[in-house]
Parts: sequence; structure tokens; C-alpha cells
Amino acid sequence: MPIIVQKYGGSSVADVEKIRRVAERVKRRRDQGNQLVVVVSAMGDTTDELLALAKKVSADPPRRELDMLLTCGERISMALLSMALQELGVEAISFTGSQSGIITTDEHSQARIVEVRPFRIQDELRRGKVVIVAGYQGVSYKREVTTLGRGGSDTTAVALAAALDAEACEIYSDVDGVFTADPRVVPDARKLDALSFDEMQELASAGAKVLNAQAVEFAREKGIVILARSTFGEGTGTAIREIAAPLDPRVKGITAEHELAVISVRGPQPLVAELFEFLDARGVRGRLFAYDAMSGEGGFIALPLKDVHGLERLEADLKVRFGERARLKHDLGTVTAVGAGINADWTNLRRALRTAETLQAHVHAVHTSALQISLLVDKAHLPELTRRLHAEFIPAAQAT
Amino acid sequence: MPIIVQKYGGSSVADVEKIRRVAERVKRRRDQGNQLVVVVSAMGDTTDELLALAKKVSADPPRRELDMLLTCGERISMALLSMALQELGVEAISFTGSQSGIITTDEHSQARIVEVRPFRIQDELRRGKVVIVAGYQGVSYKREVTTLGRGGSDTTAVALAAALDAEACEIYSDVDGVFTADPRVVPDARKLDALSFDEMQELASAGAKVLNAQAVEFAREKGIVILARSTFGEGTGTAIREIAAPLDPRVKGITAEHELAVISVRGPQPLVAELFEFLDARGVRGRLFAYDAMSGEGGFIALPLKDVHGLERLEADLKVRFGERARLKHDLGTVTAVGAGINADWTNLRRALRTAETLQAHVHAVHTSALQISLLVDKAHLPELTRRLHAEFIPAAQAT
Repeated sequence: MPIIVQKYGGSSVADVEKIRRVAERVKRRRDQGNQLVVVVSAMGDTTDELLALAKKVSADPPRRELDMLLTCGERISMALLSMALQELGVEAISFTGSQSGIITTDEHSQARIVEVRPFRIQDELRRGKVVIVAGYQGVSYKREVTTLGRGGSDTTAVALAAALDAEACEIYSDVDGVFTADPRVVPDARKLDALSFDEMQELASAGAKVLNAQAVEFAREKGIVILARSTFGEGTGTAIREIAAPLDPRVKGITAEHELAVISVRGPQPLVAELFEFLDARGVRGRLFAYDAMSGEGGFIALPLKDVHGLERLEADLKVRFGERARLKHDLGTVTAVGAGINADWTNLRRALRTAETLQAHVHAVHTSALQISLLVDKAHLPELTRRLHAEFIPAAQAT
Repeated sequence: MPIIVQKYGGSSVADVEKIRRVAERVKRRRDQGNQLVVVVSAMGDTTDELLALAKKVSADPPRRELDMLLTCGERISMALLSMALQELGVEAISFTGSQSGIITTDEHSQARIVEVRPFRIQDELRRGKVVIVAGYQGVSYKREVTTLGRGGSDTTAVALAAALDAEACEIYSDVDGVFTADPRVVPDARKLDALSFDEMQELASAGAKVLNAQAVEFAREKGIVILARSTFGEGTGTAIREIAAPLDPRVKGITAEHELAVISVRGPQPLVAELFEFLDARGVRGRLFAYDAMSGEGGFIALPLKDVHGLERLEADLKVRFGERARLKHDLGTVTAVGAGINADWTNLRRALRTAETLQAHVHAVHTSALQISLLVDKAHLPELTRRLHAEFIPAAQAT
């Protein structure tokens, strides 16, 4: 029997009624003659609520204990989903990340999966059971509980699909796949039927919430086709798979990232090196957005930071160490256009900057790659700039 | 340095502010030159809330999944307490039951500790850390997560104290030790300075909530002196230890049990055997309260059941299998007087029954042992009967 790995996000298991409906969906898929492994996220806002508790205790909670705390979210939903399935007469068993054999590095709060030993899962599948797995978590080779970072349940699903040689990896959420832009911001946004791994990865890195960037990386490495679909809708979803470079390059989607902290630095190169050291020592990740040392007075550098636990403390430490030379800003965000071949020439970059001008939005910095153009602007401009870039690059007539 | 095991109950860690105060208390004890192992329960009503979630999904949730779910409660509080300690500059690390080496039987929801392998705890104590342990949980030899039943955190603490050869085992709650009766019911109730293991065990079995009965059993076996104290008060608490049989036997305390389901059966002996089989198959525990087969028409048996998950389903199953012959009643409760030597002659039993008569409370059944007299009455009589028995057996002049 083919093995199907499904993953249900937090909004799909937000309450008991939804968990019951997911159980029915799982049952149907199983009754069609499949072996099912179901990865679940924490219910609704559970992770945020647990995080808020931790923040009340400590401005910068120790990561190991934070992982201990946050992993409870998925344990709660996995146990409830297993109960719901058994209530429907389907034999089921739930496993934590550790029990599922998800072995990770020991970088708490942003561990990476290094190996999957799914022996217990395979045993239970052979016994005819549906196996429920807590997403987002694993166990380090030091036997410590770890988490994979926000959206890490996607990575769990893809890693399991690869280790189990699954026929499909289905990622369920409250939207029917990947759209050309966030439909809440851009009413014209349309669903895409297919995307390449590269394009999906750029979209995810630049803030698209449908799929976790690491998960896409993993799927590409292992050759797993991902199907992103809606949990309760009847849509066909978006397939993310290897796609040959297009003859006709075009922009596939526009995405914005609001929840950023941006460090801006002005100073000579040694200062920048010192800043990287400072961030590494705290395990803070981000990306180098723009670096410009052309002017005589030293470089400018912008570092959008994601998923920073203990932001207040980071900000205070930064002030002590760097004073006015490095500032943490909360009022900036990015809008990104993604598409293979987007930067084949300068046309698209010019169009993007001209579009920003029509809005009188000051572009603080620009970042480009083979697949994307990303603009750093004041947060206030994000929604309108997203709409205008969508209108500019994705005309209504363009088929998906 | 001496090792101290402390256990804080749910009300002691009910919110972030209380967790912070517990952390300060732990720090003080450590600064006095002790190694600290701190066992925590789930915050406030967390366990009940998780249980309510499970009940929404399934009338009789599978026990294995229920254990997966409920163990999250202690994981949340242990992680938060560890964070709070580190915030105070105290090095701390939290461990789940499994990581602490609490090995149990595989009877989910009421597992018993069979072995403690506290190697990781000992390692971390040697490194100078305070070790926080999730109470109430362990791991079976089949590597499944198990729970020890209500109040099981006490058992965790005592078992760890024994395994670590601790100097003291301190059980903290919101009352300053063991009282002659529940002070909310009996205003005259007084704190006891000391109690024997036997007496404490009888009180706990009969509903006193200060200490878990299995924990007391464990302490007796291992010769661990337990000190029951208030978390935030300055009282001296109650010591539970080996006490030679008293020359002057007297009643130490009166306790009532409200949260009981009582099965009453009338029928011949084979019916009773069938009932025991029925209960065993469902892992339902209780105690045989009274069994009377003297009358020609068959026996009467009363079984107070504790901690029954899935009571509605049990009741339905019982009806299908036994019809009118075995009935589950919710409107009964017990009042119990405890004291070594209480039944040396019939005096105290006579006094207890006479006291019930003054209240016109019908006594459905009586249970006695070397240490206690327990009366099964309508729930409505419990508070007043407790007060009257306290007045009868524990005169105001009696020193504690």
C-alpha cells in the first residue's frame, strides 16, 4: 500500500470540531487504500500563547527550556487527533518527534534535521495503524528536545516523506495552495497550479506563509513533490516540483514580510564583522539584505532578522555594544517579487523601482538574486506596494 | 552537599508570578548550601483543562493518548520554572519524567514506578545545577509515556528522594501541612505536627488531598521522611515518619471524599466476580467498601471508584452488561476518621454511628481497618457529619 504523508497546520486543528473534521478526512484517504502518516502543528495560537508565558518569566528565555515548553503544543494536538481517529474506529497512535526518530542538530529553537530513523512509525504502519506525528520537533544526538523553527512542521512532513519513501507529501492549511500574492491584500491574486522548488523557496524566504523554506529545500534535495492544499476546501492546490527553466520568464508571485526586525549599520568594515560575531554568539539568524561600502564614511548594511526570541534583550545588548552605530528598527518591511529569470536584464528592477516611486515610497535598500527582487520600505507602504507590484507584474490576463 | 527534593503542587505554580516566587524560594534553599531537585505539577487547572479537551473528542479517550496529552501540563511548568531560576542567575535544567529516568509499568493513566535511574539528574547536580523534574509522569519499559494517576507528582518526589538518597523530601502546597479536618469545613480543625506513615496513608486514601497515598507507601518502604508544608506561608508543616504505636490511641483526623462514583451491586457471588472482571478489563480501580452476603437474596457490595476517565461510557457499559443488578451512583460520599488503634475495641465505631444518627444521616455501609472508620452516606450529609465527628473525636483541648 502506498504511504501518504499529510501535514495539517495550526488553523486546521484550531479546535476540537476541526480536529474531528481532519480525522474524517484522514479516514477517507485511508479507506481509499493508503497508509497514512499525519504530521500536526500546535492548535491555533497555542505556540504564541506558550511563548507569551515564557516572555512573562524571562525577556530572553533560555532556548533549551523554550523548546521544552513549545513542543507541548504539537503533543496536545497529536494526542487529540489520535483520540478522534480512534473514536471513528480507525486504529491510530501518536508519536513525539523523538519517538518518530527525528534526529536533529542541537541548535535549540532552530535545529536542523540530520537524520530520520522512522522505525517505530514503520512498525505501526505495518500493524495497520494511522501514525500521528508531532511536527516542528525532534531530539538531538545529545537526547535533548529541539524545535525546527517556525513552520518547522512542514520540514517534519517532507523529511518523513523522504525517509518513508512516500508516494505523496500533502501540506494542508486554510488556503488552497500558493497565490500570486496574499488575497487579503491583493483582491486580484490568483492561485498557481505549479511552482518550481526555487521559486517556492524564494517566496517562502521572503515571507510567504504557505510553506516553510527549509522544507522546500529538503523536498528539492530528496526529490519529494509537495502538494499544498486547503484542509476543508475542495480545490486542487499547488504542486511544488522540479520545473525546467522557463523559456518565457515571468513573475510568479509578490509577497511581503511585516514581522521583521532590521538592523541598520553605518560604519567601517571591522564594525560589520563585529556585528556578525555579536549575532552569531546569540544564534540570531537573518539575511544580508544590502551592503554598500562605496561611500567614504563606511558601509551601510541591512539585516532582516526572523524568529528572534528575546528581541528586547537583543536590542538592549546591541545598544550597549554598538551605541548609535547599529540600530534595530521595527518600522521596516520588505516586498518581494519572485520568478525564475526575473533579473535576466534590468527591466524588471527598473519597473519595480518605478512602481515604488508612483507611491512615493522611499526604497531604503534593494536585494536581488536570480529569482527575486526585494525592496526594503517603510512598513506603512507594504500593502499598497504589494498591490501595485502585482498589477505591474501579474496582469489579469496572465494564465496560471 | 546534601540533596533536598522539593515538590510544588499545581496551586503553587498556578501563574507566572507564583512560579517566580517558587524560584526565589528554591534559590534561598540552594544558597543555604544544598543541592536541589524540584518536582513540579501542572499549573493550576491545566490538567483539568486538557482532560476536558480530551472528553470533547472522546467519551472514553484511549489511555495512551490521554497520557501523551496530560503530561504536557508538567512540561510547561517545569520549563517555566527553569527559565525563572535562570532569570535569577541560578543555573537550572528541566527534565521530563523519561529524561529523569522514572521507569514505570505500562498501565497508562495509573502506572506504578518500578525503577528510578536518575543518571542525568546526578550529572547535572554535579555540575552545580538545580534540576527541575516534571512530576506525575514516567516512561514504560516499552518506551511509552505514562502517568502515575492523580497526585502522582508526590510519588515522583518521594521516589527521587529515595533514589538520590536525599536528606529531605519537602512537599509544598497551599496548606501548611496536614490538618485534623478540612479547615474550610471544620473551623476548629488544627494542624498536626507529626503523623505516622500508616495514618497519613489512611487519610490520603480516604480523600485527604495533602499527600498522595502511593507516595506515602513509597516513603514508608524507602524510609523517607516527608515534610508537608505551605509554599508561601512560614508555618512549620507536618512531618510524616515512622512513629511507634501510641500508648494512647486517638483519632488524628477526619476526612471526607466527595468525588466518588460508587457501584452498588445486589446479587449472588458469581455476579460480583463478573463485576470485578468487568472493572479489571477497563483498568478501573477502587476499593471494596462493604461486602455483605448474609441475606438470602445475595450480596451487597459497594465500590468507591477514583479517577475514572470515561465515567459516562463506564456507566453505559455497566448498564448494558448488568442492567439493574449493578448501579453506578453519584450521590454518595464517605467520611473517614483515622487514627492508629481506633478500632482496638468497638467504642469508636459506636460513637461514629451514634454521631451519624444525631444528624439522621443514613449510613449505607461501613468500612473499618486497624486505622480507620469510614462511613458511606448521602453526599448532602458530608460537611455536617465531618464537623460532628471532628467535635466528637478531636476535642478542642486535644494538643496536636
